Amino acid sequence: MDVEALRIKLKNHDQEQLLQFWDELNEEEKKSLYNEINAIDLGEVNTFFKDAMAHANEASEKKDDRLQPVPSDVCGSITRTDPKTLENYRQTGLKAIGEGTVAVLLLAGGQGTRLGVNYPKGMYDVGLPSHKTLYQLQAERILKVQELALKLTGKHGVVPWFIMTSEATKEPTEAFFKENNYFGLQKENVILFEQHTLPCMTFKGKIILGNKHKIAKAPDGNGGLYRALKNRNVLQDIENRGIKHVHVYCVDNILVKMADPTFIGFCMSKNSICGAKVVEKAFATEAVGVVCKVDGVYEVVEYSEITTKTAEKRNPDGRLMFNAGNICNHYFTVDFLKMVCRERQNELKHHIAKKKIPYVNDNGDLIKPSNPNGIKMEKFVFDVFQFTSNFAVWDVLREDEFSPLKNADSAAKDTPSTSRHALYSLNQRFVLRAGGRFIHEDGTAIPLIPSKGKQTEKGDVANNNIERQNDKDETAIVCEISPLVTYEGEGLEEYVDKKDFVVPMLIQKDTEQHSTEARQKAKGDDSKVKATNITISDN
Amino acid sequence: MDVEALRIKLKNHDQEQLLQFWDELNEEEKKSLYNEINAIDLGEVNTFFKDAMAHANEASEKKDDRLQPVPSDVCGSITRTDPKTLENYRQTGLKAIGEGTVAVLLLAGGQGTRLGVNYPKGMYDVGLPSHKTLYQLQAERILKVQELALKLTGKHGVVPWFIMTSEATKEPTEAFFKENNYFGLQKENVILFEQHTLPCMTFKGKIILGNKHKIAKAPDGNGGLYRALKNRNVLQDIENRGIKHVHVYCVDNILVKMADPTFIGFCMSKNSICGAKVVEKAFATEAVGVVCKVDGVYEVVEYSEITTKTAEKRNPDGRLMFNAGNICNHYFTVDFLKMVCRERQNELKHHIAKKKIPYVNDNGDLIKPSNPNGIKMEKFVFDVFQFTSNFAVWDVLREDEFSPLKNADSAAKDTPSTSRHALYSLNQRFVLRAGGRFIHEDGTAIPLIPSKGKQTEKGDVANNNIERQNDKDETAIVCEISPLVTYEGEGLEEYVDKKDFVVPMLIQKDTEQHSTEARQKAKGDDSKVKATNITISDN
Repeated sequence: MDVEALRIKLKNHDQEQLLQFWDELNEEEKKSLYNEINAIDLGEVNTFFKDAMAHANEASEKKDDRLQPVPSDVCGSITRTDPKTLENYRQTGLKAIGEGTVAVLLLAGGQGTRLGVNYPKGMYDVGLPSHKTLYQLQAERILKVQELALKLTGKHGVVPWFIMTSEATKEPTEAFFKENNYFGLQKENVILFEQHTLPCMTFKGKIILGNKHKIAKAPDGNGGLYRALKNRNVLQDIENRGIKHVHVYCVDNILVKMADPTFIGFCMSKNSICGAKVVEKAFATEAVGVVCKVDGVYEVVEYSEITTKTAEKRNPDGRLMFNAGNICNHYFTVDFLKMVCRERQNELKHHIAKKKIPYVNDNGDLIKPSNPNGIKMEKFVFDVFQFTSNFAVWDVLREDEFSPLKNADSAAKDTPSTSRHALYSLNQRFVLRAGGRFIHEDGTAIPLIPSKGKQTEKGDVANNNIERQNDKDETAIVCEISPLVTYEGEGLEEYVDKKDFVVPMLIQKDTEQHSTEARQKAKGDDSKVKATNITISDN
Repeated sequence: MDVEALRIKLKNHDQEQLLQFWDELNEEEKKSLYNEINAIDLGEVNTFFKDAMAHANEASEKKDDRLQPVPSDVCGSITRTDPKTLENYRQTGLKAIGEGTVAVLLLAGGQGTRLGVNYPKGMYDVGLPSHKTLYQLQAERILKVQELALKLTGKHGVVPWFIMTSEATKEPTEAFFKENNYFGLQKENVILFEQHTLPCMTFKGKIILGNKHKIAKAPDGNGGLYRALKNRNVLQDIENRGIKHVHVYCVDNILVKMADPTFIGFCMSKNSICGAKVVEKAFATEAVGVVCKVDGVYEVVEYSEITTKTAEKRNPDGRLMFNAGNICNHYFTVDFLKMVCRERQNELKHHIAKKKIPYVNDNGDLIKPSNPNGIKMEKFVFDVFQFTSNFAVWDVLREDEFSPLKNADSAAKDTPSTSRHALYSLNQRFVLRAGGRFIHEDGTAIPLIPSKGKQTEKGDVANNNIERQNDKDETAIVCEISPLVTYEGEGLEEYVDKKDFVVPMLIQKDTEQHSTEARQKAKGDDSKVKATNITISDN
């Protein structure tokens, strides 16, 4: 170890504090710290910091006057498109899938910290009758959409699943997929890769020591995707597989439509190289970024970056002028990704996230600060929108496609309960649209929801549900349909039309039954075992 | 007591069971039961039952094919009306108030059972910094709207407050207003009257004994209003006061705009005799009745009365075809009420609400059934919509005007927390619109809501809020503005424009300060006392 050289390098980059406790370290600690520091491009990190800070100051200025809505010719809406056109989009997407030119890319660097667990969110079981995890639901949707493409095109197109993990999530995710045999997918079509980390810095730009011989580090944000795609040779792999379209999404949306053919078909028919799926903002101050133009360039703007006045602006049709709520669900052509990763990636500035970062003070004591004492530097996946003039925005229904899992059940929203019930509600509608009905044990009909007018009556229903499900949502009717049975409600008629069902209800393939029962048993869940089980065989 | 005559009467009406335990009763019990039975018009009750059952069977048939949306010429929307027209509506309403022709009528027959309290909902304190109850907030909004009318018209118009209570809520409500000096209103302008009760019946139409000498009774629903208006001579009182317009609402909406001038002005300029304020349905299966036409007649249809297919129908503009969500907020002319009460009231059929009704079985044991064993008969206030062809529907923003208090905080929605935060959010927007800003103790700006992109950073903010408020809503910034200071945000500029505020924040009149502190003390609430207090004097 050439410590002197290191010292000089650190001095040149104003980071000498990293060797502050050098003399107190044992050989092993010294080696580890030495290597850790040398692995960091200090010049780069300092530049990141300078740029991020400058960027943050710009960003702190309200953007009101620079804001424009997304031009209407770029937008499409699932509620404003006629059925025939919708079906064309869907088939265009399915054909691309059949040809094996579509991949899905999952951003799964985050841990379930706010959720109260210390493992990757994708491994979370929200408590469905089947006790499937988010990863399993997503895997089975891939299998199903491949099947739909096969039915339509006769081609066995594969949708490879690229999963960007972080230092914290890579190993557990890998192990989890392995022990679950990749949920029926081919091992080689589930590609995990790790995003990079960056040192945490003080507000003054000094790299923070997490302890005497270790640097405090954090993942570089979901926008680290582009750097990782390039440096981990994932982009090359994507090209080698003949992929042309990539559907990018976040792990925590239980309703996510994997490789959504309609969304992909819409973007394709717009000849867009970059697209965003959005939901209409529920109200002006809702906590969601909006896709819009800033100085003529596409961007996702946070509510905090504009004034209430602008956030509350409305079009003549009564809708919010800036209502394209970003749900981290994007379409990219591979050509666009190549261009970004190879030419523009460095132009993406880091955003700063003020954090409480455990550190060692000058006396060498480990301090857990109660207020933010430093920053993480993060890029956002959507920051590449600025690089296209060839954009597409697809507006979908929140109740059909977006319910993120972010908090523990003690929180008011985005909890395991809200996710679970969002899926129940969607699956209920699948059954009802296909002509099925829900009834009580006594044969009387169950209204999907308590009716305000007839509160008392429905109130009782609701209470029964509560007791039955022992959760907060009074309106829930437990109804789960395996993604292996249906992707978006199609093909259920033959099983449910004109039939009455007692809840809880679970529709799955007969091939799933054993593993489902095993999971229920493992969870000691017998309430769910009492479910109306419809098992479907392929012949 | 002519018991024989009574027996015969009962026999003629198939209700002999009421004297089933006669011989076991003591004199007092006999007298009380004797009087109770004689007070009931058995013929009428039996007819109510027959009609209600028949009506329920009709209602059980889906109404899809008979449904039409409200004609567009009848509708207005606060988000689709230009500011000038809106201001005209508001001034029209304020002028009517100035002339003393507007009254508010509160439907407050319900108890806080689902809320977990045994007193009237209006007496509930949702935990605002001021610890004002729903009744007090409503009273102060009346005072404020009278003041606004005075400013505009120079006339001291009084908005009398008619409150329909029930057997259960009358006395406590009366006492509560008395001990609070009617919250600054004139005693004679707060008029309480009691709705009627009806016997609870078995599914076979037998009146149920709650115990051996007492009949099980229940209020006749908020549609009992019309019968009570007539029989309690309230309608006469309304006429005598020269009232022409009545704004009817339910007690549990913390955001309710008392005597809303804009709504009243809109209905007046439409020359409507009956109107409904609505909010757009959030999603097709939301638990809210929709105002629409059935066989050409105006009606509120519950989701359970139509199929999913119809509920999910959309207009070319992407909105749900049936999206006028009823929020129990209505406009009636006095002429319309007179017509209804005197001529049509009897045509309103009762709806049945299946309930678990404690009863005495044949052995005389008191049974608390675990399943519904009988029915309550209820009318709905909105059932009179069928009597007008001269209707008006005013579509407002949910986040500005509707947040009902229905459940305890253990529930997922419509809780004290959601009500409180709905008011905070509205008041925050008042401050922001008037040019104010919210900051942390350290002077840094507080974004109204955690920003998804910059989650981590805002996450911290949110957590501070949680600790500070010790409640579920991570996005809450405590901000309360007394209704005595502003009705809908007007007039705040001089106090908040270009100023920074640390939360929790409370803006009130200096005249309120003492009583507020007293309430805070009584509640042992010092967190709220630390609020940024802005007290405003009238000079």
